[in-house]
Amino acid sequence: MIRVTVWNEFVHEREYEAIKAIYPEGIHSCIAEFLGKEEAITVRCATLDMEEHGLTEEVLNHTDVLIWWSHAKQEEVSDEVVQRVRSHVLAGMGLIALHSAHYSKIMKVLLGTSMSLKWREGSRERLWVTAPYHPIAAGVLETIDIPEEEMYGEFFDIPKPDEVVFTGWFASGEVFRSGCTFTRGYGRIFYFQPGHEEYPIYHMKEIQKIIINAVRWCHSEIKRTLPIECENTASYEAI
Amino acid sequence: MIRVTVWNEFVHEREYEAIKAIYPEGIHSCIAEFLGKEEAITVRCATLDMEEHGLTEEVLNHTDVLIWWSHAKQEEVSDEVVQRVRSHVLAGMGLIALHSAHYSKIMKVLLGTSMSLKWREGSRERLWVTAPYHPIAAGVLETIDIPEEEMYGEFFDIPKPDEVVFTGWFASGEVFRSGCTFTRGYGRIFYFQPGHEEYPIYHMKEIQKIIINAVRWCHSEIKRTLPIECENTASYEAI
Amino acid sequence: MIRVTVWNEFVHEREYEAIKAIYPEGIHSCIAEFLGKEEAITVRCATLDMEEHGLTEEVLNHTDVLIWWSHAKQEEVSDEVVQRVRSHVLAGMGLIALHSAHYSKIMKVLLGTSMSLKWREGSRERLWVTAPYHPIAAGVLETIDIPEEEMYGEFFDIPKPDEVVFTGWFASGEVFRSGCTFTRGYGRIFYFQPGHEEYPIYHMKEIQKIIINAVRWCHSEIKRTLPIECENTASYEAI
Amino acid sequence: MIRVTVWNEFVHEREYEAIKAIYPEGIHSCIAEFLGKEEAITVRCATLDMEEHGLTEEVLNHTDVLIWWSHAKQEEVSDEVVQRVRSHVLAGMGLIALHSAHYSKIMKVLLGTSMSLKWREGSRERLWVTAPYHPIAAGVLETIDIPEEEMYGEFFDIPKPDEVVFTGWFASGEVFRSGCTFTRGYGRIFYFQPGHEEYPIYHMKEIQKIIINAVRWCHSEIKRTLPIECENTASYEAI
Repeated sequence: MIRVTVWNEFVHEREYEAIKAIYPEGIHSCIAEFLGKEEAITVRCATLDMEEHGLTEEVLNHTDVLIWWSHAKQEEVSDEVVQRVRSHVLAGMGLIALHSAHYSKIMKVLLGTSMSLKWREGSRERLWVTAPYHPIAAGVLETIDIPEEEMYGEFFDIPKPDEVVFTGWFASGEVFRSGCTFTRGYGRIFYFQPGHEEYPIYHMKEIQKIIINAVRWCHSEIKRTLPIECENTASYEAI
Repeated sequence: MIRVTVWNEFVHEREYEAIKAIYPEGIHSCIAEFLGKEEAITVRCATLDMEEHGLTEEVLNHTDVLIWWSHAKQEEVSDEVVQRVRSHVLAGMGLIALHSAHYSKIMKVLLGTSMSLKWREGSRERLWVTAPYHPIAAGVLETIDIPEEEMYGEFFDIPKPDEVVFTGWFASGEVFRSGCTFTRGYGRIFYFQPGHEEYPIYHMKEIQKIIINAVRWCHSEIKRTLPIECENTASYEAI
Repeated sequence: MIRVTVWNEFVHEREYEAIKAIYPEGIHSCIAEFLGKEEAITVRCATLDMEEHGLTEEVLNHTDVLIWWSHAKQEEVSDEVVQRVRSHVLAGMGLIALHSAHYSKIMKVLLGTSMSLKWREGSRERLWVTAPYHPIAAGVLETIDIPEEEMYGEFFDIPKPDEVVFTGWFASGEVFRSGCTFTRGYGRIFYFQPGHEEYPIYHMKEIQKIIINAVRWCHSEIKRTLPIECENTASYEAI
Repeated sequence: MIRVTVWNEFVHEREYEAIKAIYPEGIHSCIAEFLGKEEAITVRCATLDMEEHGLTEEVLNHTDVLIWWSHAKQEEVSDEVVQRVRSHVLAGMGLIALHSAHYSKIMKVLLGTSMSLKWREGSRERLWVTAPYHPIAAGVLETIDIPEEEMYGEFFDIPKPDEVVFTGWFASGEVFRSGCTFTRGYGRIFYFQPGHEEYPIYHMKEIQKIIINAVRWCHSEIKRTLPIECENTASYEAI
């Protein structure tokens, strides 16, 4: 059983009627719903307004993969929670950062770069599989058309990804590394660009399939150990 | 002084008037001309119809960077010459493979994959810099518009590049890893997609700048040693 | 069920009594035996002296992961079989190359470099896990001592691996990238250095565990397609 | 002219007579001295006890490559200075982190992982070149013996390096990725393990050559731009 926690700042969906119409219970609930239909996955949700943002040591100890959506309130996430999440990722918890979460504190502390990119409201996107051999692309069509999406364009200031599983083509003339994997410590990280809150992108079956694949892939088979510190080792015998 | 040899199969430019009009002396001569204007570069050319395709041991011994354009006659390049070029690349000679040279024997033996891609005649391309920190991108604008180019699209079956310096956006809806670096042995390899023979792409100043940068980058500072074989080493002392 | 074919040149074990004593039925039989005890794995063997070296299209069509041991007779493997194996790897068949198989034709055509290294008979090796987060290292101790092993030392002329899962320390003063993963086309490749024929290395439980892990990891979840060629695509609609 | 700033916490050399005997003016002065003999390099020093640790905006604006040695007082470096240095690295300033600086705040914020490793006082090290094609290895012997060095051993919790230029072999039975390159934003980073303060390692010509090579390599040819932020781009014309 893969234990997933879907975290959402849950702000836009309460403030704007148009967004609420798309995600009445919040983006997290939409994601939790389609994940929950998978036999091998069990889901819980957490949001910014909960105590400790719902990400206590207890919750993280029972989370194999954390999904993260954030945008307007990136800076309101407490540094203590960010460091706690970071420790768990380094110890083997998977992390899936969606859309504007590229600019979240947790992604910045884990990846170290500015995470900056180009953006513009309103474009059409065609998502291409650029690593068809990767488990996250299993059973995914070679292209997915997203009728409306916010444009995210290069240069995207990230460390070199392990794999660029998806590359986005935008009708307005840009390209983007839209699906990137990273490894940090024992943790597997997947950044996935689609999912602007004004469009019903997480309702698309093809996008859901990718997120389901990503949950499976981010779930490490390796036993987790916490914490990771420098170790003064005794001398080995017989050398 | 960087010693460049520009190799071209030199077939299309002789067979088709329209192509001859663009490259009257062949693609190689066009490339040699703009490279030759660089103070630090000295150029010679070689073509398929020359003896040993103009790539004798003597020529390669005096070549720091080899530029390769081929398309219609990939299979007519002799295996002996291919192995000779491969040895020199592994020993430190730089290699720049242009456009359809992705499917050349030399690229296939060096990279090992099928090198397959999607293609279609006629599209408009916008080239994006996706590694602006790379020397090959030095002084290059973040986008270059190529009014007419053959479409090359993903999935491009290559081993994971060291860097994807340029990514192509095609008006017809595709993306492509258009500028990729690889290291094999001591040799630096740059694959660069632009340059379909029917369009005057190598006459574009921006494209020329990239090729000039690539020549500088592919020129290894490391002293070359030939050949590379397994070595039965004597025991080290004092261990 | 993962279908494994263990291929062995099967020469040393017949020629030398000391080696025969370690592997009476050949190295392949030893490997097949411990793999065969795994519920999820089914095994067959093939050797150099079989017709088409036992690697017919039929056999490869029913092979998910091919294990390869070769040394003395690398050059006697037919080029036709090598190209056939290469096609299957690019289409998704896993490949595990053991010890001196670094210098096999199949590894050379897939990786493109000289595959050269330093070597010397007789040393003691300590294998270190240098990518403990990797599935091939799951459940493996952080070091494995191999009392007697042939020394393989750097520089090892390989393309940059996706991961260096194991690094070898030799008592004689050398280091080696002893467990390396590569992806070529849809195929996952694992090179694993331990296993000189004069020492009972494949009888070691810890080494067996690594090979079992590697079989699981090399088994791609992605549906295979053969062959991979360039594709002239029709225009996409609605762009 | 490459403008280098050598930064040192400068604590051990003042506190311990034995260390002072090796580096009477501090490790930074030793490094500055051999760098200063290079025609293409100009050097200044900065230490922890200076105002703003000697790393003002003004100093960093005139620094192409920053060398960093720290150990006992990692946590006393102010967060403000760390963020300032990080911004400059992302904007193209090179960074060379020596020995225990793997655990500095600046390395942790740039790389994101725990940076943990194994260590033990007293061993003998043999440094192997594992990327002989890399400019940092130019003219360096394939092995360098360091008679006395603190042992640093794997697993070293770093993100996957661009290149592992050097790998350390320790007589006590360990291996280590001793010379690693990373790219973050426009900045080139080199981590180099040798240099425990109790041994005269920076007096060794071979070690000096590597640091000189690293200075040259870390010096980016690309014009720096500060800061790097997300950019709301206007629509491109003519798409």
